[in-house]
Amino acid sequence: MRPVGRTVWAIPGGHIPLRTTGREPEETSSDTVCLLNAGAQDAEIEMLVYYEDLEPIGPYRLKVPARRTRHIRFNDLIDPEALPLDTDFAAVITSNVPIVVEFTRKDTSRDRNAIATTLAFPGD
Amino acid sequence: MRPVGRTVWAIPGGHIPLRTTGREPEETSSDTVCLLNAGAQDAEIEMLVYYEDLEPIGPYRLKVPARRTRHIRFNDLIDPEALPLDTDFAAVITSNVPIVVEFTRKDTSRDRNAIATTLAFPGD
Amino acid sequence: MRPVGRTVWAIPGGHIPLRTTGREPEETSSDTVCLLNAGAQDAEIEMLVYYEDLEPIGPYRLKVPARRTRHIRFNDLIDPEALPLDTDFAAVITSNVPIVVEFTRKDTSRDRNAIATTLAFPGD
Amino acid sequence: MRPVGRTVWAIPGGHIPLRTTGREPEETSSDTVCLLNAGAQDAEIEMLVYYEDLEPIGPYRLKVPARRTRHIRFNDLIDPEALPLDTDFAAVITSNVPIVVEFTRKDTSRDRNAIATTLAFPGD
Repeated sequence: MRPVGRTVWAIPGGHIPLRTTGREPEETSSDTVCLLNAGAQDAEIEMLVYYEDLEPIGPYRLKVPARRTRHIRFNDLIDPEALPLDTDFAAVITSNVPIVVEFTRKDTSRDRNAIATTLAFPGD
Repeated sequence: MRPVGRTVWAIPGGHIPLRTTGREPEETSSDTVCLLNAGAQDAEIEMLVYYEDLEPIGPYRLKVPARRTRHIRFNDLIDPEALPLDTDFAAVITSNVPIVVEFTRKDTSRDRNAIATTLAFPGD
Repeated sequence: MRPVGRTVWAIPGGHIPLRTTGREPEETSSDTVCLLNAGAQDAEIEMLVYYEDLEPIGPYRLKVPARRTRHIRFNDLIDPEALPLDTDFAAVITSNVPIVVEFTRKDTSRDRNAIATTLAFPGD
Repeated sequence: MRPVGRTVWAIPGGHIPLRTTGREPEETSSDTVCLLNAGAQDAEIEMLVYYEDLEPIGPYRLKVPARRTRHIRFNDLIDPEALPLDTDFAAVITSNVPIVVEFTRKDTSRDRNAIATTLAFPGD
């Protein structure tokens, strides 16, 4: 079977809430990109982050080994720079091999959990 | 690489709640369209809003510069007219260049956050 | 422009919660199918509802006029029969003209709102 | 009409919360795969579960009879082994006949419901 997925993915709706309630880190308000590499070759991934008012930042370089998944919080990205909180952003992800990308949000700003998720848009 | 996205998108499930709790504007109940223009050319976007009982309203004209994202609350649209609250609606978005569209909802009507998100439907 | 959408859609994840808190009907726990007919011809829609343990029920017949949206709660369907609460179900929707379908869930069983949404799966 | 769906599906964003509040089992924090087999032939389904740090586990074998839906909690899978809680995972699902797959999450870790849902990614 050929590897599942695509090599270009887009996420338009990023926004990490400023406020968090509850235990860190598992209840921190966060936006997460969930990457699945079901293939036999390691994935070298680059992500560009887009904003409303400035040029895209990146690339953020991510690796997902063959037959592995990685869920990476945008909150935890620091190279080339950390993402600002409470700021609209979007992302475009490119990989050297097919991967599958889901975008998950957790908002604990108001004392309880709120969660949302969607597949990213396969761009190729 | 060719620009990521499509030029026609549809959102069937719009409905801005009547009630809001918490701080304005960040905790206002809202429906938001998240637009990503990852290409090198500015996007000129038109949106038609559909209702259950009357002809579509629009076009709402939106711009997203090259390599930028914009997250626009339906609550904030006023030209040609503001959207009614607590009313089912849908939207069709057309762009002169490929874009990616995600639809995000926040409902704070009952004292806490509830959030939901999905990609819009790529219509071309 | 040709009409936006498809003529066959599937929703695997239906389940109306048994419990509801808050004001009826706007805070009733509900599963909703959001239909957009952006075309120039009225849509005649048929929906089959699938269960775990019995043959599919239907067709439920729905109409969406040209250039209109309708958001229909599964809770409100009665012909040919009402859906049981707290029961897993799925749906397949067929239309004589292209439409776009989103599936939205509201769960108020535990004193606050929880919401979720996804596009249905375009099957043709 | 040919059967609705695809034969390969991927879910990148699995993660069963460790904590649960409320009545068991309906308010247990859970990740659920919702399978629809709208066709005339029984579906024999295999699922592989991917992790961040070890080889994929499986196959988990699932059956969905013709014209039936099944919503299966990842929490309830035990053969070949139960899934660990509070651990990122992903899944790839293959079927001998076309099916449609939706992924639904419930998080009751913080005293109230939070829900999220998305279609899985059709991989073929």
